[in-house]
Amino acid sequence: MRNLKTFFPIFDWGKTYTKTTLTNDMVAAVIVTIMLIPQSLAYALLAGLPAEMGIYASIAPIILYAIFGTSRALAVGPVAVVSLMTAAAIGKIAVPGSADYIAAAITLAFLSGGFLVLLGMFRLGFMANFLSHPVIAGFITASGIIIAASQLKHILGIKADGHNLYELVISLFTHVNETNWATLALGISTTAFLFWVRKGLKPLLTTLGLKPRMADLGTKMGPIAAIAVTILLAWGLNLQDKGMALVGDVPQGLPPLTLPSFSLDMWSSLVGSAVLISIIGFVESISVAQTLAAKKRQRIDPDQELIGLGAANLGASFTGGFPVTGGFSRSVVNFDAGADTPAAGAYTAVGLGLASLLLTPLIFFLPKATLAATIIVAVLSLVDLSILKKTWQYSKADFMAVLATILITLGFGVELGVTAGVLISILIHLYKSSRPHMAVVGQVPNTEHYRNVLRHDVITQEAILTVRVDESLYFANARFLEDAIYDLVAKHPKVKHVILMCPAVNAIDMSALESLEAINERLKDLNVKFHLSEVKGPVTDRLARTDFLEHLSGRIFLSQHSAILELKKDS
Amino acid sequence: MRNLKTFFPIFDWGKTYTKTTLTNDMVAAVIVTIMLIPQSLAYALLAGLPAEMGIYASIAPIILYAIFGTSRALAVGPVAVVSLMTAAAIGKIAVPGSADYIAAAITLAFLSGGFLVLLGMFRLGFMANFLSHPVIAGFITASGIIIAASQLKHILGIKADGHNLYELVISLFTHVNETNWATLALGISTTAFLFWVRKGLKPLLTTLGLKPRMADLGTKMGPIAAIAVTILLAWGLNLQDKGMALVGDVPQGLPPLTLPSFSLDMWSSLVGSAVLISIIGFVESISVAQTLAAKKRQRIDPDQELIGLGAANLGASFTGGFPVTGGFSRSVVNFDAGADTPAAGAYTAVGLGLASLLLTPLIFFLPKATLAATIIVAVLSLVDLSILKKTWQYSKADFMAVLATILITLGFGVELGVTAGVLISILIHLYKSSRPHMAVVGQVPNTEHYRNVLRHDVITQEAILTVRVDESLYFANARFLEDAIYDLVAKHPKVKHVILMCPAVNAIDMSALESLEAINERLKDLNVKFHLSEVKGPVTDRLARTDFLEHLSGRIFLSQHSAILELKKDS
Repeated sequence: MRNLKTFFPIFDWGKTYTKTTLTNDMVAAVIVTIMLIPQSLAYALLAGLPAEMGIYASIAPIILYAIFGTSRALAVGPVAVVSLMTAAAIGKIAVPGSADYIAAAITLAFLSGGFLVLLGMFRLGFMANFLSHPVIAGFITASGIIIAASQLKHILGIKADGHNLYELVISLFTHVNETNWATLALGISTTAFLFWVRKGLKPLLTTLGLKPRMADLGTKMGPIAAIAVTILLAWGLNLQDKGMALVGDVPQGLPPLTLPSFSLDMWSSLVGSAVLISIIGFVESISVAQTLAAKKRQRIDPDQELIGLGAANLGASFTGGFPVTGGFSRSVVNFDAGADTPAAGAYTAVGLGLASLLLTPLIFFLPKATLAATIIVAVLSLVDLSILKKTWQYSKADFMAVLATILITLGFGVELGVTAGVLISILIHLYKSSRPHMAVVGQVPNTEHYRNVLRHDVITQEAILTVRVDESLYFANARFLEDAIYDLVAKHPKVKHVILMCPAVNAIDMSALESLEAINERLKDLNVKFHLSEVKGPVTDRLARTDFLEHLSGRIFLSQHSAILELKKDS
Repeated sequence: MRNLKTFFPIFDWGKTYTKTTLTNDMVAAVIVTIMLIPQSLAYALLAGLPAEMGIYASIAPIILYAIFGTSRALAVGPVAVVSLMTAAAIGKIAVPGSADYIAAAITLAFLSGGFLVLLGMFRLGFMANFLSHPVIAGFITASGIIIAASQLKHILGIKADGHNLYELVISLFTHVNETNWATLALGISTTAFLFWVRKGLKPLLTTLGLKPRMADLGTKMGPIAAIAVTILLAWGLNLQDKGMALVGDVPQGLPPLTLPSFSLDMWSSLVGSAVLISIIGFVESISVAQTLAAKKRQRIDPDQELIGLGAANLGASFTGGFPVTGGFSRSVVNFDAGADTPAAGAYTAVGLGLASLLLTPLIFFLPKATLAATIIVAVLSLVDLSILKKTWQYSKADFMAVLATILITLGFGVELGVTAGVLISILIHLYKSSRPHMAVVGQVPNTEHYRNVLRHDVITQEAILTVRVDESLYFANARFLEDAIYDLVAKHPKVKHVILMCPAVNAIDMSALESLEAINERLKDLNVKFHLSEVKGPVTDRLARTDFLEHLSGRIFLSQHSAILELKKDS
């Protein structure tokens, strides 16, 4: 547990707040607010929730993160992958559109927030490191594909459903004959427009004489322009009568006060999903925060980030929101727009609050296809299959982990995908370290160096067998070590001394210690002495605490060379 | 997959079978048969099954293990811990005594056998190594306590139930007022007698002039003597009328042919338990087999052992048995009695078959308290809390894993206990390697050695920072490495070169490679060059397959000393 004041980084940056910082923060807030409105609506839609919940999920969380978080540029709110995971989690226990579904979303934010705060208070942020980078990359890529596929129904104007690629494709094919042509036309043109904004608008603005940074910000306004134009179209052409799905009535006003459910049943069905969402959200958020902090030589405290994100999620659950985390694109915009402190987030929250009070009537005419186009264009930038090629070249084990994560996510959904990814990484790591590299070594002539007999021309003694093991010794490889040594001794019947050379052994756990004792006893029965050489200081200290050294038939030598000099005399 | 002939080790020892081996095997078989009868009945009782199932579970499995197993002395059959786990598993889905309960036991043996065979065919025996020795020791100890507690009801002659210590103690207290005094008297005196046989009989027999080995075997006959005497007492004094629980009617005849259930429902409720039972049974069996094999310089093939145990369990499921494995005490007796080949097991099976045909009517009068006394005396030798003291002295992490395993097993039962033990060991291992030991190093004056600046008087350069990391780099510690290096560079503002010294780095996975790339990029921004030194051959080979070396701002040096000589010129 930690000193109370460290939980409030606001005391840190609050002291030095000046007029310049205020101006910078305000400008950034305006830009981010404009960008967040379509994003928030779209991710609520992705989670299967009413559009306004997206706005609600951006207000309180941003303020709470500003108080508790350590990143100065991170913008917290609904993000694509977490929204998809939310849909998968609550879709298991309630029907989209029902009151139960909304209650489940709110409860999920509460559980996720509580879990993050607990992790932070007990300094367990390191657990996020158990997700390997390639597994995360594979998971994000697969999620991006699923998200894009899940939005095609809105572009086509049909009903379709599914939490994995297979279900989605089947469902789309089943309903494709119901396509609404007006929706499709609007959906495709919006998607095309947004793609052009990403790829073509920035060069155009630069040619027109705008500074690169302004051109960059201009392109970020694309989605809000698409929303304004399609609202006007839907209203002017009365597209609702042509069967186009619009967002419809959105309650006008500030976020409501809500309470999570405290039903044990709901908790037990959601807690696993909450853990997964928290970890994925944390990993995504912290890598954004660290990237941005590095550019300004600032430091991020992972445990405090857990508190900040946890508070944000708890805030979401009490103000009609759903699980949130730090988003990449919005944080980059915030950073590029010049946000100096987390206060920029608070001003963004005020902007969104005003939008929620004043602008919601306009949203009635917003076509769902527009939001779907926004999502598709945003998530396709997440899809990056190059990780498969990279890992294939570098490490087949990492490749297997990524491939399995991608396939399982696409085939069975996000929750199973990420769980499998974590387990496979850990199993592969255990498997690799359970079969450590071992080499019989000999002396390089006229030196004090000892090298692998298979790779080098070295001098060996008939009566002395030296085995180097290149891994820490622990339960997963203890038995392997025993087997390997017994096999080697069986192959060298004239051996009188076995030296285990330990320059790369950073630790020996209790299981491995018992294996060393077993090796010692068994070699004693065969009249072979067992020695260790080049044991590291901390390892020797620990061995000295046991009675291993008393039973050891041989000795512990500081250097391999002194071992050989000494034992040659003896044999 | 493997060559077909390697699946049948019987071809190996069968070729050299002589008259002497035959005699040795027969003698051992007679002794083991006499000893197995009470054990088999008792462990069936422990599993909540009819007594005869214990005999059935010893016949076919022994023969099948003789065909497929590699240990020459291992005796397969019901054992205490596996019987307890069986009771826990099938107790969840059926009421003890019902036909469903028996069907579940048979199905559990089938699933467990199938799983073991699969592991063996795909050579996955190494998975058993993921159980650390201290966790196994803690689990066996806690199981021994639960087993002894579960048998107290038979000693008291009351009904009581529970799958963990807490439930058992509550249940015993609730019913203790129903104690049957005749049963208690017989139970206590039998237990005392069996303890005396263990501790006092052997010295007595030795004083009487018996050879140590014969005295040892004599003491193993204690349980059969207890059974004979208490049967006579129960029959002569008509103890059944005094309310004593007897074994009662046992069908006379050879093991019946049975079929496991193929209901998917039952499979899905039992498969998790089958996996746990298989792994615990395998770990227990293989350590017995290896201990005995070592004494005769024989080798055990773990993957073939999986096939042998798997076949034994499949055999049990088709002949009215329940999950079995290699037992410690019976195997030692078999070994001490001079069994030369697995054929001894087959002769034991014949002996048990005869017993099942001829002796079952006598068992009617056997008091359950006698069997409970046999179990209590047998399992208390499993209880060994010294592992707590040993791990406390050696490694707090191992201590935590053992303590958690013992407490969770006692408090929540065997399945949760062993699962928690495995997970905790793995998490502790990941946690330890996720915070590797790192040291800033400097040159030991007048040598080419570089040591920790905190432990040694060494020479350092203002512009060069050398950091040695004592662990392989992989996903769990990649971020830690990044953080540590950024912190160090922040503390040394005059640094122009950072050298990562890697003599203990046995591998770098994709996540760690990305971290190295990130470190390189970030240091580049700070005008600091990043170098590696003393990188192992296989690691360098792998790095060379990527574009890391092209982007690296510094170089890779073979030795730390050459790095310093080179960079000193530069700065």
